Amino acid sequence: MSTLPMILSRRLRPSPFEQRAIEHGASQFTLYNKMILPLIYESVAKEYEHLCKHVQIWDVACERQVEIVGPDALRLVELITPRDMSTCAVGQCKYAPLCDENGGIINDPIIIRLAEDRFWISIADSDVCLWVKGVAYGRGFDVRVFEPDVSPLAIQGPKADDLMADVVGEHTRDIRFFWFIDATIVGTPVKIARSGWSGKGGFEVYLQDSSKGNELWDIFWEAGQKYNIGVGAPNLIERIEAGLKSYGQDMTIENNPFEASLDRYIDIDKEAEYMCRDVLHDIAKSGPKKRLVNMIIEGRDLDLMRADWPVLGDDGEQVGIVTSKTWSPRFEANIALAIVNVSHVSPGTPVMVDADGDTRSATIRDEKWNAP
Amino acid sequence: MSTLPMILSRRLRPSPFEQRAIEHGASQFTLYNKMILPLIYESVAKEYEHLCKHVQIWDVACERQVEIVGPDALRLVELITPRDMSTCAVGQCKYAPLCDENGGIINDPIIIRLAEDRFWISIADSDVCLWVKGVAYGRGFDVRVFEPDVSPLAIQGPKADDLMADVVGEHTRDIRFFWFIDATIVGTPVKIARSGWSGKGGFEVYLQDSSKGNELWDIFWEAGQKYNIGVGAPNLIERIEAGLKSYGQDMTIENNPFEASLDRYIDIDKEAEYMCRDVLHDIAKSGPKKRLVNMIIEGRDLDLMRADWPVLGDDGEQVGIVTSKTWSPRFEANIALAIVNVSHVSPGTPVMVDADGDTRSATIRDEKWNAP
Repeated sequence: MSTLPMILSRRLRPSPFEQRAIEHGASQFTLYNKMILPLIYESVAKEYEHLCKHVQIWDVACERQVEIVGPDALRLVELITPRDMSTCAVGQCKYAPLCDENGGIINDPIIIRLAEDRFWISIADSDVCLWVKGVAYGRGFDVRVFEPDVSPLAIQGPKADDLMADVVGEHTRDIRFFWFIDATIVGTPVKIARSGWSGKGGFEVYLQDSSKGNELWDIFWEAGQKYNIGVGAPNLIERIEAGLKSYGQDMTIENNPFEASLDRYIDIDKEAEYMCRDVLHDIAKSGPKKRLVNMIIEGRDLDLMRADWPVLGDDGEQVGIVTSKTWSPRFEANIALAIVNVSHVSPGTPVMVDADGDTRSATIRDEKWNAP
Repeated sequence: MSTLPMILSRRLRPSPFEQRAIEHGASQFTLYNKMILPLIYESVAKEYEHLCKHVQIWDVACERQVEIVGPDALRLVELITPRDMSTCAVGQCKYAPLCDENGGIINDPIIIRLAEDRFWISIADSDVCLWVKGVAYGRGFDVRVFEPDVSPLAIQGPKADDLMADVVGEHTRDIRFFWFIDATIVGTPVKIARSGWSGKGGFEVYLQDSSKGNELWDIFWEAGQKYNIGVGAPNLIERIEAGLKSYGQDMTIENNPFEASLDRYIDIDKEAEYMCRDVLHDIAKSGPKKRLVNMIIEGRDLDLMRADWPVLGDDGEQVGIVTSKTWSPRFEANIALAIVNVSHVSPGTPVMVDADGDTRSATIRDEKWNAP
């Protein structure tokens, strides 16, 4: 069974784009930050093919924002991430893992600097608002922390630039990667960032009035007809090929940023106070015990992974677990992410995967999916 | 559309009882604390009838525990709730709304005192662990806060006492309401509390080893055959009739405990420090602006409530919203919970409900569903 019927209720918040997503054929969903996230329309493979060539509209309202505003905003943002946020200009965004006092990853959001003293944390699936509110309360910081009425709509794919230029203006072509501009669409203010959860390029449009969801969707949908616009969603195939990690799936609070192979997104020597400085320095010195790596699993397409699949070494000993997997049309193979002991992380290392009793050969790959 | 197909993934945690629930015919689900919660097997109405007469087994593993342990544990627990926890003995449980510094409800858990310096917070659907970790970190409290491997299985209904006596021993009949004992079932230690999310009585069995889910289920299921045991779940009909509120549905962080009509579960003059003392004293003095009340809505069974349904006064002005509703076989009417301005909360007050354009007469009822 790969899906279960989920009962809708007031507790599962509707997205401002939910009506349009369902009208356009969304057929399989997940829940993300207590909000419906449409994941599949026709099939992951079809939507993957289309995303690689054209432009898509994605309901990613479930990427909720946590707003931090006030005199201590920067101090608080610095405290909760080992990434150096002092170099984040107003108008810029940074992908920044949030860590607790033990170095455990709380979330891996994009942090958006709206003003000197105002940030949005654009979150993956965990309640960052409660975490940050708790820290701010405990430290007595002079800030307000809350979830504003802000819902991202993603425009992704190689034709995203053309579409955005048509809808908003040619100047949107000049938005740099992980920067944003302010604009007005359908009479409502939005922020448009060059970002998104695919490796195919595109934008995230931050709607700030959830009553305007249909109108915002419609203007892109209509203008997108000449670019063969399609519906889509964060795509399992594309995101694993592109090495994008999913919080809660590929890493949890049990993992530190080194284990999650997020080394390049942290600055453990940054000047500002952050809560896991000593822990991360210790791990950097001794080296992490395990790492998140790419892996190719041999053989035909695999069944749904519901229980954890062990990764096994030569002697059948467990050396890790598979965290995500999919069939890749590009590689014509099962591609996977796995957290594996450092003894077994070198590209080319042969391992086995126990997929609910279906034991397969597998090989560790590097970040570009190569092995020597 | 009342259900949507939900894709399973590693991010949506399986319950230790999930396999058995599905084998026994669970057909509709929700997600609660990022864990699958089976809500319906055959139908809510059938399971309601059975629950009123016999005994049921419920997979409520999604009621996760947040463990707080250490020298500052009681101080921290007191800080996060306006309920007086100093009177909670070891072995006892208390229903205690958690509130932020503005009085907003973070969750409405049962707090279980395991030892002088050790508590479990048995939570509704919000990430209390992150909130409490943040507060503890910020205040520099000497405690450890984490989610242990603990999953409740509920045994509910009028024959629950007989079944528990058969499985665990006659002494379980003496467990007082909202107290627990330690026991061993299927060779694994459990805590058994007289509690549960129904008004029909019963127990919650706290399994502390998620690998033992099937065995724990099976021993109750087999012993329960002579009591006509059935499968069930927190039942929408039963819980609204019994006045049980659902966090995220009937109250959110936007509401304070007075608005949520939880007055009897808070002690605003308690001795210990708690973070919203001044705010709650102010509200107690001026009176809350709205209240959660019972309501009967006239006419036949209503469709799924996806968008908020406004409650309207005499002049058509909005005076509140419906938060939960169901058809009640006992009252042969639509029963509902609604948050309504204090001007309209007296039992007997006539109002209207705009159910997606289907406008119905309705009446405020008291807690026993009476109106003068």
